[in-house]
Amino acid sequence: MIVEVIAVGTELLLGQIVNSNAATIGAALAEKGLDAHFQQVVGDNLDRAAAAVRAAIDRSDAVIMTGGIGPTRDDLTREAICQATGLEMEFSDEYAEYLRSWWVARGRGEMPDSNLRQAQHPAGAELLVNPKGTAPGLALEHQGTLIFCVPGVPAEMEHLLHAEVLPRLVRWGGKDEMLVSRLLRTWGRSESGVAELLDDLYTSSVNPSVAYLASAGEIKVRISAKAADATAAGRLIEPVEEEVRRRLGDSVFGADDETIERIVLDLLEERGWRIGVAESMTGGLLTGRLTDLPGSSRFVAGGVVPYDSRLKQSLLGVGDITHVVNEETAAAMATSVKELLDVEVGLSVTGSAGPDPLEKPAGTIVFGVSTPEDTRTREVRMVGDRERIRIYAVTTALQLTRLALTGKWWGV
Amino acid sequence: MIVEVIAVGTELLLGQIVNSNAATIGAALAEKGLDAHFQQVVGDNLDRAAAAVRAAIDRSDAVIMTGGIGPTRDDLTREAICQATGLEMEFSDEYAEYLRSWWVARGRGEMPDSNLRQAQHPAGAELLVNPKGTAPGLALEHQGTLIFCVPGVPAEMEHLLHAEVLPRLVRWGGKDEMLVSRLLRTWGRSESGVAELLDDLYTSSVNPSVAYLASAGEIKVRISAKAADATAAGRLIEPVEEEVRRRLGDSVFGADDETIERIVLDLLEERGWRIGVAESMTGGLLTGRLTDLPGSSRFVAGGVVPYDSRLKQSLLGVGDITHVVNEETAAAMATSVKELLDVEVGLSVTGSAGPDPLEKPAGTIVFGVSTPEDTRTREVRMVGDRERIRIYAVTTALQLTRLALTGKWWGV
Repeated sequence: MIVEVIAVGTELLLGQIVNSNAATIGAALAEKGLDAHFQQVVGDNLDRAAAAVRAAIDRSDAVIMTGGIGPTRDDLTREAICQATGLEMEFSDEYAEYLRSWWVARGRGEMPDSNLRQAQHPAGAELLVNPKGTAPGLALEHQGTLIFCVPGVPAEMEHLLHAEVLPRLVRWGGKDEMLVSRLLRTWGRSESGVAELLDDLYTSSVNPSVAYLASAGEIKVRISAKAADATAAGRLIEPVEEEVRRRLGDSVFGADDETIERIVLDLLEERGWRIGVAESMTGGLLTGRLTDLPGSSRFVAGGVVPYDSRLKQSLLGVGDITHVVNEETAAAMATSVKELLDVEVGLSVTGSAGPDPLEKPAGTIVFGVSTPEDTRTREVRMVGDRERIRIYAVTTALQLTRLALTGKWWGV
Repeated sequence: MIVEVIAVGTELLLGQIVNSNAATIGAALAEKGLDAHFQQVVGDNLDRAAAAVRAAIDRSDAVIMTGGIGPTRDDLTREAICQATGLEMEFSDEYAEYLRSWWVARGRGEMPDSNLRQAQHPAGAELLVNPKGTAPGLALEHQGTLIFCVPGVPAEMEHLLHAEVLPRLVRWGGKDEMLVSRLLRTWGRSESGVAELLDDLYTSSVNPSVAYLASAGEIKVRISAKAADATAAGRLIEPVEEEVRRRLGDSVFGADDETIERIVLDLLEERGWRIGVAESMTGGLLTGRLTDLPGSSRFVAGGVVPYDSRLKQSLLGVGDITHVVNEETAAAMATSVKELLDVEVGLSVTGSAGPDPLEKPAGTIVFGVSTPEDTRTREVRMVGDRERIRIYAVTTALQLTRLALTGKWWGV
């Protein structure tokens, strides 16, 4: 059973909002073992929205449209379905009555007539009551294809998706097959290095299947299995996951939604420690990443950003500030910020992101981590432009912190 | 000129990542006045990716594909173009050589052979060097349609988009006539507020045309003119720009690529001042934004991040730390960081990004700016999730700094 998502809205084409609805629906479909081959985005334009519907009907078993079912003139999803299918537009007196009472119950006075557009629907469609708003969803079977419309407002879309759309799709699909994915997050190996280590798994394994995904400084390995239920899918994934972990070793630092900042916070909680940061070249971004997650204030005391080298002396008591990109400075920054902020872990970054090199070539970065157990530093050379180097430096600092917090550290 | 975006990757269909690339590209196209009617997402599947390319070629003048050009076997974008267009796959010895030297220069030892896939390209395609990674972009003209491939990694995609793709699209679009856009960046008015002030310009003016674009905390007004050459286009834009600036007044803070952080650095240079930051809820992101640009170290001394309130006392000497989200604390943080870092301008942010409210509701943020001329504060209530509130807070802090540096300040 192939399901296609069409998001309707010019604001999506213009990049004014990100199409998070498509991701939400895609993840929900995958959880139910429903396949998706295409997603489309189309603007608030009748002919083009109708063309998108026709393309989806041609190649998919079911279509979920999100957006364009509100009361205004540029809400054209209902009309697009009529144009694509040749169905007549009908009007539901019953839903119009429901709309009026909804309006009155919320003390909003007389309902503007424009809202009555929402009682229109392609002939034969079922109106799906939307308790979170006035725009009803639609469910329709047309020549063997299921067509659904849900609102574009995420909370309303999600409610109708789970309450109405997915149960109908699963009933319609008839087969209880489930797709379950496991994401292993790795650091320290290149994408091609990971691919080579797993090459035979990738080519030979169809169910579960293995795929790679590269993102800033991290390579993710996805293992996906189809089975009758989650337990059976898990049984298929387990031996492959074990083999992948065996081959990649310590490169695997987390799974699924365990970001490196999440892992570091969890390790701090485990140890009962708090962290403080002294960062120059990353200019605050490292502390920013560490404080991204709600609840981080329990483990992250804060940081100092001695972007001007002289502040390394005045704020952190670092001695020689004429040469600041070296292991001595990184170690002094880490131990000193630990004391200054009265925490158990001090983390430091010093270096040059370019383009103007300091005493070392641009891209030279030295990290320091100081815990109650040890203080170590590591010098790294990174390439790329300023922005990339700063982002990779933040990721590397967090990964080195993970190694320190697990007591594994790294070669001296 | 109609441009279509195709994002390639099964992880997008499965909702494991959100398609932010499509939004980034959509916004960049809109800024250049290039139209987009459709976006597509397709998985790592050769036949379906080829079908997506054919559909895009049929209805659009240019296609930008993002993702699927890495070294692994599921990177099929190059093959999909060959299948859709009938072009042969060729191999670039020159690029293979470049890849090998890239690898060696980074001290990564012998390059895995799988990387050589990246030297393959449809016949006639130009390889676009990607300084941030090994996967080159592609540019190709096929029977009157321009086809581009860029990586899926956002930083690499954005670099190639701006450095290679957009300039070619603008040149191509201007075969007979040239499209020139002027972007006025505004802050402090809502999108509907800006729209109301410019309503008649928006409805009456066809060449140049006027459009609005909303992005994180900023409303951009785009004036686009078509003419035989840049000078003629500029003559069309000039009177409209003058009128827009007259109506919007001080809301216009910059034009084209003048980001607010660029403007603030320029104002600091003009005044001969340096800035220091004390930020709690933004956790380092504000200092991070200020140090994004090369050369910022001349004007940005650094900052302190007293994420734990007690550090507001120990590092900044703020008196009452049981109530920290108020104007007294913001003022004390701004003046104190100014002294601590020995600079002319102190900037502070204190507040709660949620979800756990401190003494004020989540989303309450207080800013402080202290210059040699004055110290003022401003309390703001922001809505949305934690991430959105932190980003808006950074933008607002920079905008208030701009007002302070121009001596205009704001109502007490």
